[in-house]
Amino acid sequence: MQDTHQDAVLRTLVGHRSIRRFTGETVPESDVLRAIEAGQCAATSSNIQAYCAIRVSDAERRRRLVTLTGGQQKVADAPLFMVVCGDTRRHRLLAERAGHVYESNLETFMLATIDATLFAQNMVVAFESMGYGTCYIGGLRNDLDGVHEVLSTPHGVWPIFGLCIGRPDHEPQRRPRLGAESVFFDEHYPDDESMLRFVDDYDDRLAVWYAANGIDTPNWSSRIVEHFDECRRTGNAGWYGDAGASFA
Amino acid sequence: MQDTHQDAVLRTLVGHRSIRRFTGETVPESDVLRAIEAGQCAATSSNIQAYCAIRVSDAERRRRLVTLTGGQQKVADAPLFMVVCGDTRRHRLLAERAGHVYESNLETFMLATIDATLFAQNMVVAFESMGYGTCYIGGLRNDLDGVHEVLSTPHGVWPIFGLCIGRPDHEPQRRPRLGAESVFFDEHYPDDESMLRFVDDYDDRLAVWYAANGIDTPNWSSRIVEHFDECRRTGNAGWYGDAGASFA
Repeated sequence: MQDTHQDAVLRTLVGHRSIRRFTGETVPESDVLRAIEAGQCAATSSNIQAYCAIRVSDAERRRRLVTLTGGQQKVADAPLFMVVCGDTRRHRLLAERAGHVYESNLETFMLATIDATLFAQNMVVAFESMGYGTCYIGGLRNDLDGVHEVLSTPHGVWPIFGLCIGRPDHEPQRRPRLGAESVFFDEHYPDDESMLRFVDDYDDRLAVWYAANGIDTPNWSSRIVEHFDECRRTGNAGWYGDAGASFA
Repeated sequence: MQDTHQDAVLRTLVGHRSIRRFTGETVPESDVLRAIEAGQCAATSSNIQAYCAIRVSDAERRRRLVTLTGGQQKVADAPLFMVVCGDTRRHRLLAERAGHVYESNLETFMLATIDATLFAQNMVVAFESMGYGTCYIGGLRNDLDGVHEVLSTPHGVWPIFGLCIGRPDHEPQRRPRLGAESVFFDEHYPDDESMLRFVDDYDDRLAVWYAANGIDTPNWSSRIVEHFDECRRTGNAGWYGDAGASFA
């Protein structure tokens, strides 16, 4: 029994692929609430619960979010779409009600970002166990000013990513990851030469996989260099929680 | 079959409690690698995989980490202890090998923090499905300079939290969370009055639970006010990735 249980969980985790096309089937509210509950059961630093999720269903607002995320049509098409936020507003409201001053800093920003991500990943695992597909939408951070206009998020609540959820309408392959030796170490981070060798091995492995799947794309190393050639999303500092000022 | 599968996963997620005391039983390497694999299968922004985990087994280094985390003995006692890090070093090495300049900013810091947290939470769920207990150690951020001295983390690798893992040696109760209405909204974040009412309801519910469990502690609201009265961990900016400078 324990083995079956364990297998089911590991199968869900290892079976993850981002799903970008969905059937039109709606997500029943009972499934949504089950996922929210699972999300809330994730660890949270000192029980501060510094997160929230805003479900966006209105078609016009979804369309505006498609534009803001650089044309990601799935944001409009997903049966369920929510925006996961760092949320220190509750803490501030409580402090101010008690006549205290709430001061945020880089650490409160960090706490909320971690808390919200733990919450989201538990939701994702819950949804996937129920047969749904999910996709994180980091592109929401392309234009946080614009997203704020759509969501009217108050001070102390800042979008971290979106989540598309629905029944999968495609069966994408799971792309291989870096070898475990590249991300898991004993006692010390490896030297540069070893790390570059691990990455080269990954490039080789990925090239075989790309060829087998008929995908014509640059190798990982080249893609990473290109990806980080351009500094992205440099205008977000003001949005990152109350701590914004310290990032500006 | 699907239902059993789903139940097993939801049971694992909802059954989470932080475990702070462990039996002496070691964690077999096969279980560790299974959890690492599950972690690596989590979503990662554009496949950048901006994370790593450093396992610390050396007793003397563990003892130093106990001191740095404010005397958390479980950091020494856990059969398995690892430090989960944001890791943009691989990206920098690749950029520099290609003759490019790698520039980081608040967004790369954010990407890596999210990536590492998704990785960690999948590991946690995997370990818990195998019957292990886990505990996140955010206290590692109390003194990142000190932690760096212990781990010798290179530039571009910064500790986010520790993870204690082992067979549970206690059966803590699961503390109730905020009601779903406090963290999940339709279209808009609620007004302040509603939010404070939700929080007051939570205080009432928690008071009943504390009484039933014989725990004498301030209510959530008071604890939160007190918790954030003091700005914590304000000296970390320099450690938060290559982006450190922009936070200082």
